[in-house]
Amino acid sequence: MPAIERREITGFSNPTVKYLRSLRDKKHRKRERKFLAEGLRLLTDARECGKLPETLIMADKRDPHQLLDELEHAVAQNGGEIIVTPAEILTKITGKDNPQAVAGVFTEFDTSLTSLDRTAGSIWMVAQALRDPGNLGTMLRTCDAVGAGGLILIDDCADPFSVEAVRASMGAVFTQQIGQTSWDDFLPWLRSGPENQRGQLIAASLRNAVDYRDAPYAAPCFILVGNESRGLPEAYENACDLRVTMPMKGRADSLNAAVAGAVLAYEVLASLD
Amino acid sequence: MPAIERREITGFSNPTVKYLRSLRDKKHRKRERKFLAEGLRLLTDARECGKLPETLIMADKRDPHQLLDELEHAVAQNGGEIIVTPAEILTKITGKDNPQAVAGVFTEFDTSLTSLDRTAGSIWMVAQALRDPGNLGTMLRTCDAVGAGGLILIDDCADPFSVEAVRASMGAVFTQQIGQTSWDDFLPWLRSGPENQRGQLIAASLRNAVDYRDAPYAAPCFILVGNESRGLPEAYENACDLRVTMPMKGRADSLNAAVAGAVLAYEVLASLD
Repeated sequence: MPAIERREITGFSNPTVKYLRSLRDKKHRKRERKFLAEGLRLLTDARECGKLPETLIMADKRDPHQLLDELEHAVAQNGGEIIVTPAEILTKITGKDNPQAVAGVFTEFDTSLTSLDRTAGSIWMVAQALRDPGNLGTMLRTCDAVGAGGLILIDDCADPFSVEAVRASMGAVFTQQIGQTSWDDFLPWLRSGPENQRGQLIAASLRNAVDYRDAPYAAPCFILVGNESRGLPEAYENACDLRVTMPMKGRADSLNAAVAGAVLAYEVLASLD
Repeated sequence: MPAIERREITGFSNPTVKYLRSLRDKKHRKRERKFLAEGLRLLTDARECGKLPETLIMADKRDPHQLLDELEHAVAQNGGEIIVTPAEILTKITGKDNPQAVAGVFTEFDTSLTSLDRTAGSIWMVAQALRDPGNLGTMLRTCDAVGAGGLILIDDCADPFSVEAVRASMGAVFTQQIGQTSWDDFLPWLRSGPENQRGQLIAASLRNAVDYRDAPYAAPCFILVGNESRGLPEAYENACDLRVTMPMKGRADSLNAAVAGAVLAYEVLASLD
């Protein structure tokens, strides 16, 4: 194999370090349409899904690892850049105290509705105005676990390409399809297409709802989860094909958004099986 | 009703402000054995559970609210202190950009195993080395929703009295019992007591496990959830009475810890009903 060309960066004030750090900031990320992902396992998952970083940043005193060698070669062969830098600079870039030995820069994926393959799964998660990037990443991870088609983000959600969301997704940001749209565009898309592909929209609700353990789920199921503080707007709930209710035995009248989505998704999975 | 004595604080450098802020820091919190909780809804939940703050801090330009008046009277009658301060100082105390109009200081509860009423619920959650306070709070919230007895924290977990955990619990920190102990003390406690109160310890596992939808759950069920990165130690898994497995259809081999606990808890709830 030919030698790999590596660029060494040792200074905190290096412009590339500044550029990479800036990708933690939403404004810069959106302008560049790039995002950061960190960790050998996550980058290996990405590679196995056919997604290679354009830039690979490795800590200079990392432990050797075959998967890291393979990753480096794949990035280099693909025309990507390899950067080697002290662990402290990598920490500064990713903003994590306990840094991984490697990080990568990816181009954001197309998240338009038209890019989604609706036949990819019989369960989809739909989040409305979900504000917490950790919740968003956790929902992606749950999507992966139930073999979902993907996660569709409605209205003003957290950024799925933020470092926190990517981290919480544990790699599912690469395995799951992601859509970003508005409610007004989502509904016609959901109702379009061949009849057997039209989605059943499902909300957890306290209004006019059936027991979630005994509900007539019909694939493809789109599980709609609302904003962390306000829940779903009533009009959105009313537009759902199915409103299901989950036991609430305590004082609270709701679950964490990512938890509610997961409990429902596992119920749908068992019901469709 | 007699007039309530209120203390006004207007300076950021006031020692009481410094003291209150310091409660966000674990070291200070543990020394004082006090914690902060914020928001009218949460403090009202606490009051209805018989828990009143020793100090109530209110924003000076808050909107009037009957529940807040009731809370203030209850705290004053109970001999507590009432502080009125600008919203900016309250923001500084709780560290939240979008501050609630009220916060309270509570004494930490007794979290020894001997303080727990085992008959309080037929489902318990047990977290081992859970590091994320958000996950911890979310688990408390799920405990409340399934009518659990409480949450038991094993080994080195995040602090249930941190601002983040209290916030994520959405008040469940006041409604749920909390235990803090070690594995070596937990197991004998679990196996002690009258035979019908001895707990069934359940782990989500990939080893030698039965389908979680078809498992012989028997109350009281103790659902054991492991550390976010490492999962459960094998020895802990082996000590469980029941190992159950959940479908993992994607690339990942695990769920977020709070999500896994919730999916299991809802399954146990349905099974025991």
